Amino acid sequence: MKKLINSPDTVLAESLDGFAAAHADIVTLGAERKFVRRARTTPGKVALISGGGSGHEPLHAGFVGLGMLDAACPGQVFTSPTPDQMIAAAEAVDGGAGILFIVKNYEGDVMNFDMAAEMAGKDIMKVVTDDDVAVEASTWSTGRRGVAGTLVVEKVVGAAAEQGRSLVELQALGTNVNLATRSMGVALTSCTVPAAGTPTFQIGDDEMEMGVGIHGEPGRRRVKLEPADRIAEEMVHAIHEDLGKAGDALLLVNGFGGTPSMELYLMYHAARTQLEKRGFAIRRSLVGNYVTSLEMAGASVTVTLLDDDMAKLWDAPVHTAALRWGV
Amino acid sequence: MKKLINSPDTVLAESLDGFAAAHADIVTLGAERKFVRRARTTPGKVALISGGGSGHEPLHAGFVGLGMLDAACPGQVFTSPTPDQMIAAAEAVDGGAGILFIVKNYEGDVMNFDMAAEMAGKDIMKVVTDDDVAVEASTWSTGRRGVAGTLVVEKVVGAAAEQGRSLVELQALGTNVNLATRSMGVALTSCTVPAAGTPTFQIGDDEMEMGVGIHGEPGRRRVKLEPADRIAEEMVHAIHEDLGKAGDALLLVNGFGGTPSMELYLMYHAARTQLEKRGFAIRRSLVGNYVTSLEMAGASVTVTLLDDDMAKLWDAPVHTAALRWGV
Repeated sequence: MKKLINSPDTVLAESLDGFAAAHADIVTLGAERKFVRRARTTPGKVALISGGGSGHEPLHAGFVGLGMLDAACPGQVFTSPTPDQMIAAAEAVDGGAGILFIVKNYEGDVMNFDMAAEMAGKDIMKVVTDDDVAVEASTWSTGRRGVAGTLVVEKVVGAAAEQGRSLVELQALGTNVNLATRSMGVALTSCTVPAAGTPTFQIGDDEMEMGVGIHGEPGRRRVKLEPADRIAEEMVHAIHEDLGKAGDALLLVNGFGGTPSMELYLMYHAARTQLEKRGFAIRRSLVGNYVTSLEMAGASVTVTLLDDDMAKLWDAPVHTAALRWGV
Repeated sequence: MKKLINSPDTVLAESLDGFAAAHADIVTLGAERKFVRRARTTPGKVALISGGGSGHEPLHAGFVGLGMLDAACPGQVFTSPTPDQMIAAAEAVDGGAGILFIVKNYEGDVMNFDMAAEMAGKDIMKVVTDDDVAVEASTWSTGRRGVAGTLVVEKVVGAAAEQGRSLVELQALGTNVNLATRSMGVALTSCTVPAAGTPTFQIGDDEMEMGVGIHGEPGRRRVKLEPADRIAEEMVHAIHEDLGKAGDALLLVNGFGGTPSMELYLMYHAARTQLEKRGFAIRRSLVGNYVTSLEMAGASVTVTLLDDDMAKLWDAPVHTAALRWGV
């Protein structure tokens, strides 16, 4: 294992300490590093809390701040955070208007966020994201996996929360954004979880995992590496077929951590070309490493069908470590 | 070679087309893809133009926009752009107040920017960045290499240009920022130039290249991989010794493309701890992949000693693909 670390046991703590120090104007680290919260919260606003296993940075801590999340709970790498983390986060950022949990659809996450919601004794609702069209069920999830589309849900719902919308309205909005969003990914290499020390999976020098999950878990099939245009075509086909229609859209090309910017923009070009052929009009774009799998090489394509409300909420000011505009 | 591409011959063109389409609100691609320019330029402002070999994205095209560059000229991967590119860019963004070239100190870049300055028949000055303390001369440069500190020069001088400062003032400011800036990097893996198809260098599973350049070129020495704290200590020692003093500082921890966010924040934590021990006060921070070497794993540490003017210019609004705040 070749990483810039001191010891597998301290990676998460040292990384969180660095994150909190680098972004002290935006976030504060909770006691025992149970959560990352906004440095300033807004009384009377619904609080948005997300979280999940670490290793997907900047998701979720990188999306804590004005216009997005109020807090994020980091689990160990690829491991759900525990209910006491969500409960502590809820205590810390509760503004008196209720709390919305945004949870990626993995069994551990859903179970632990549900347990926290029951135990917290607060007005809590949840949105579960499951935007990955690659597989209908996986080694990690019952039903589809929540992947990069979670960013879109967090951004849009976060902006609506700043406007003062109610918990029930935000839950409905989050559900709608998730329903309007589809993703699919491809991996060219594995990643290595620090505590494991060896690659999560083996893959040949000429192979790719089509439909890979964000923990390196299997997708649809292992095949020979194809040209970017062919990969984009397959992803866009799967996404379009599953959406059932084309329209005004947000296109997010997300890197998994080990693929350079040059290739991500090339994939954006390829995916956009495919989408436009199918009648999509790309109204908003985002390209970069946002929902990663440590240093895995590969990328995912996410498409969200936008209505006017969602487009305006996407454009609204955001001030987080990883997404920032209008502020 | 395992990359999300169609053909090594079309990587740059397709990537630039994707970049321009994704950021059409900020940039426009010049004819024959000779340069990336701001979608809107400001008459009467000194125009800032940079450029260099591709493969370091987001540098430089990702820094084109309000508050930073007016244009960037992308060469082929790790290959200087040609003088006709800089001349075309100068024609396109000349606001009548002169042009400042910001050039990383590599022989090809310096030669071609100098040639362009002579041939363009315009009022052109230049700032050459050479912030890398690792080696005094290299396989690619006479004198020190210009690396991630170039971002700091582009941001600070870009903000000053928006204020209406003169060409002479901006040239002096850029020179001063470069003089106040030092960097050093480490690589854990090589990168692969698409047209070459094989790794730029070989490195053992337990080795690192200390002092590596941003083209994967040799640094100070090849040694066994060490803990992050030790690596940070060596980098900070070299930087501090060369600066000759401590003080208020900007700390940039820059990923080379293949190292995940988790490790970059851990390195930030380690470098900051070392700097604070030595009497530096970290006033501004930036952590991420900004000056990369394709998919190389590794990171660099950059320290700029800040005066009040530089700190204010760093904070000034910027609206580019890769750096954005205040807008």
